[in-house]
Amino acid sequence: MQATAELDASVFTMMRMHEDPSVDDWAAEHLPAGSVIGVDATTMSIAAMKRLTNALNAAGPEKVTVKAMYGPGENLVDKVWGDARPAVPASQVFLHSVKYAGETVADKLGKIRAAMKERDATMLVVTGLDEVAWLLNLRASDVSYNPVFWSYAIVTTDGITLYCDSSRFGPGVVEQLKADNVAVRPYGAIMTDLESMPLPPGANVWLDINVCNYAIQCCLSKRTDENAVEIIKKQGPIPLLKAAKNVVELSGMRAAHVRDGVAVCKFLRWIEEEVVTHGREPTECEAADKLDGLRAQQDLFVSLSFPTISSAGANCAVIHYRPTEDTCAKITRKDMYLVDSGGQYRDGTTDVTRTMHFGEPSKWERECFTRVLKGHIAIDVAIFPSTTGHVLDAFARAPLWQGGLDYKHGTGHGVGSFLNVHEGPHVLSFKTQALGTALEPGFLTSNEPGYYEEGNFGIRIENICVVEETGMDTWLAKERPFYRMAHVTFVPLQAKLMDPELMTKAEIAWVDKYHAECYEKLSPGLHDDPGTMEWLRVNTRPLLVQFGAVNGTL
Amino acid sequence: MQATAELDASVFTMMRMHEDPSVDDWAAEHLPAGSVIGVDATTMSIAAMKRLTNALNAAGPEKVTVKAMYGPGENLVDKVWGDARPAVPASQVFLHSVKYAGETVADKLGKIRAAMKERDATMLVVTGLDEVAWLLNLRASDVSYNPVFWSYAIVTTDGITLYCDSSRFGPGVVEQLKADNVAVRPYGAIMTDLESMPLPPGANVWLDINVCNYAIQCCLSKRTDENAVEIIKKQGPIPLLKAAKNVVELSGMRAAHVRDGVAVCKFLRWIEEEVVTHGREPTECEAADKLDGLRAQQDLFVSLSFPTISSAGANCAVIHYRPTEDTCAKITRKDMYLVDSGGQYRDGTTDVTRTMHFGEPSKWERECFTRVLKGHIAIDVAIFPSTTGHVLDAFARAPLWQGGLDYKHGTGHGVGSFLNVHEGPHVLSFKTQALGTALEPGFLTSNEPGYYEEGNFGIRIENICVVEETGMDTWLAKERPFYRMAHVTFVPLQAKLMDPELMTKAEIAWVDKYHAECYEKLSPGLHDDPGTMEWLRVNTRPLLVQFGAVNGTL
Repeated sequence: MQATAELDASVFTMMRMHEDPSVDDWAAEHLPAGSVIGVDATTMSIAAMKRLTNALNAAGPEKVTVKAMYGPGENLVDKVWGDARPAVPASQVFLHSVKYAGETVADKLGKIRAAMKERDATMLVVTGLDEVAWLLNLRASDVSYNPVFWSYAIVTTDGITLYCDSSRFGPGVVEQLKADNVAVRPYGAIMTDLESMPLPPGANVWLDINVCNYAIQCCLSKRTDENAVEIIKKQGPIPLLKAAKNVVELSGMRAAHVRDGVAVCKFLRWIEEEVVTHGREPTECEAADKLDGLRAQQDLFVSLSFPTISSAGANCAVIHYRPTEDTCAKITRKDMYLVDSGGQYRDGTTDVTRTMHFGEPSKWERECFTRVLKGHIAIDVAIFPSTTGHVLDAFARAPLWQGGLDYKHGTGHGVGSFLNVHEGPHVLSFKTQALGTALEPGFLTSNEPGYYEEGNFGIRIENICVVEETGMDTWLAKERPFYRMAHVTFVPLQAKLMDPELMTKAEIAWVDKYHAECYEKLSPGLHDDPGTMEWLRVNTRPLLVQFGAVNGTL
Repeated sequence: MQATAELDASVFTMMRMHEDPSVDDWAAEHLPAGSVIGVDATTMSIAAMKRLTNALNAAGPEKVTVKAMYGPGENLVDKVWGDARPAVPASQVFLHSVKYAGETVADKLGKIRAAMKERDATMLVVTGLDEVAWLLNLRASDVSYNPVFWSYAIVTTDGITLYCDSSRFGPGVVEQLKADNVAVRPYGAIMTDLESMPLPPGANVWLDINVCNYAIQCCLSKRTDENAVEIIKKQGPIPLLKAAKNVVELSGMRAAHVRDGVAVCKFLRWIEEEVVTHGREPTECEAADKLDGLRAQQDLFVSLSFPTISSAGANCAVIHYRPTEDTCAKITRKDMYLVDSGGQYRDGTTDVTRTMHFGEPSKWERECFTRVLKGHIAIDVAIFPSTTGHVLDAFARAPLWQGGLDYKHGTGHGVGSFLNVHEGPHVLSFKTQALGTALEPGFLTSNEPGYYEEGNFGIRIENICVVEETGMDTWLAKERPFYRMAHVTFVPLQAKLMDPELMTKAEIAWVDKYHAECYEKLSPGLHDDPGTMEWLRVNTRPLLVQFGAVNGTL
């Protein structure tokens, strides 16, 4: 929807992923024989390159070929940029203390080398920026919202090299790297190093084909015959290790979410007061700025974890909407308001969505909200043995389907620990990609079903959960453990958008229990803010009371 | 469990599918270099052959090879049999009237040829016995419980040939085949025909690799260079056409299930009276014989659709248990009793499972039964857009998982229309095979969650459902239809095994509505049997009444 609105249709033809043909298939079908597609091999994964060449070969061998370009002066896009190109980001690299990371670099290296041994790998090339940051307990701010830095790392059975310009290292980084026996080489040196570095005969080099850029493979292919290596093309060992948060990370994540919840409550109370009490109509941008400011006041805050989605009315139906000063809508008593936001804190990363109505929601809006809530609760209370996010995704949809509703995005994504707010390898989705990884204890995932009516309104409810063992001791649970999702996000849900007629007793009890937890966790952080404290108290009362039910029945 | 009990462990090593290595992988790992595996190419699908050769090649090219054997005198197993081999089945082939089939052979051929045109196929080789029977509206009884006959069919753009010995044709078959312009050739002639039959240059022959035996492909490969054909290896067009039952088939299926339900109620009343009133302890075999006899008395009955599973106590935990006269257990007031049975009727195929207790079930048994029932209800009430059986399968498991329970079989299989009681291409299963086919209107599926505790007891509840459109008109439903499962099986569920504390109001209402339907559908067939009529009345009263609840609350 956003692309359709912003693209000039006389110049661009809109092609929707998974609905229209892929770039690969389109190119295979439409390009004339003899065409050559130039690709920047540093920005294309090995897997994406494989898909492209497979699609082209299927259309006819040698009909259309691909030329991979990388290295100084070879990439055509580099040439067009010329001097106008912005410099490579070079934010200061800083320590991510073991106090927050929970695990030393040496311990992480031990696990990685165990995985390498299992695969008979001589060397692992770590190319994901968040993987390098995780491995070395370092952070920076090269990419907006993602505390990573341009780098590579190479792990061998007895060494490790970080490719990153050392001029960027902040206090203590050099010392920590030295203590961990990490060699440092300039960022750009990896390509030539891979071409020529000495490796034992018959060396096996492990590349994660979904993460590693194709240029890395090209460099390895350039080695002379006597120094040739075998390439192991498998998912790397780091995504699973990084996804299973350790107890220190989980503890930090919980603490960060409580502080974050305090900021969001302050914001929700503010916006409600502005719109309802003062009769003002703030813009989406003003609201986003207010929320961002409140978040920035929290302890250990570093940055937002993504641009705040502050959307009113029909804009709520644009899933990745971002208001701009010139065009943004006003927040009124007539429409829904959806706010999806999060922060990067030293001890954890947050991501939370709440949908509100500051006037009288229609019966239909309440039904839709309630079905989204039922889906959200279904994930929250689910208990399951080793299961993929493909199956769990449908648990959130079932109550929506029951009313003829659905949503076109996934139900959940992994979350980094003071790292990218979206991280793999797991995902809760209707797409078959979600079949790749079963959920394990310590995995974080968002739980964010929604419903979107183009031109009308949109709803999303999002908490972050951690997968944990239930400790069940049934006959079967002894054989294989059962897991549950424990939410770590605490922000009240608006009762006026719920239709209790559509909720089971258990669902109403869930909301009451969740609200009691919100009060318990957040109220200690609100002693200096009696207004928000009262807002929290009012909005976390039992639903029966909030609905004003008579005689204790709904 | 059954195999472990029956196999001599000193001779056989038990290898569990999907738990232990597959035959393919085992052979690749353990056979010495230079080994040759002989396979009967007429009993191995093209896909299975591909899996085997892929596994062997992965272990090392040419290390272990496969020799496909077929044709007179070549197959080693044939030689060992010698004269002792039972004759090929040759039951009488009879007409399956359009009154029951709902569609003429000409109409079916039209749809198949449209699918062939889409794939640019010159010829389709139909190798599934149920596919041939479906296509030609013919039935027989070559395979126990499955009303099919040994045959092949070849469909071309303008002709059709049935490979089946014409001496087997019962009344009217020759005439119908002639009217439909079906040429007839001897069963055994297909192999040599495929080697030499005239086909246009560049002919494309469509083989369903999952169904078609490898010998068929071998025969086509033997054609001379100037008569060579291309082989299209895709799922054939018939499984999807056959799976989507037409209105006549659905009407017959519903009628057959009502008659079948009458027989099952007569049986359940009988066994309850024997055990509870008369204090007898019938054997599992006696009970099965009684049920089989009652079923055989129903109109349009042809045969059972599979051997009746009549199992008491610990035997209920053996999923495909079949009692034998010598060893079968007694049905008592102490244990659970599980009966899974079905019939082949001219107008439809049935398959139903009920689990009973004739004494006082323990609280744990009631919890387990109730969780299985909740899973069964979840499938029955599910509403969903185009969705695979992989996702729906989990809807049935969710209430079991919630209690730390699960079951190791799928939740549902397709059902033929007076054809095989298990048919594809769809399936409701945790296995990824279930991802292959989305459910479509007219598809039949069983809904049969269970729970099994080895050595203790087993529970399964099974109805047959038909997928139908809901006719919902929400914003999204206009874009893509939403479906539901409509049950066609009507046999009461035992209230004493339910724990109302674990059920939602909606689930209790579901049982009451289902029981009211059972009474409405089955009572007209019981006017000559006042005993069973009374049993039906008592067992279909509202649960509140059956539980003897006071003041209308549970």
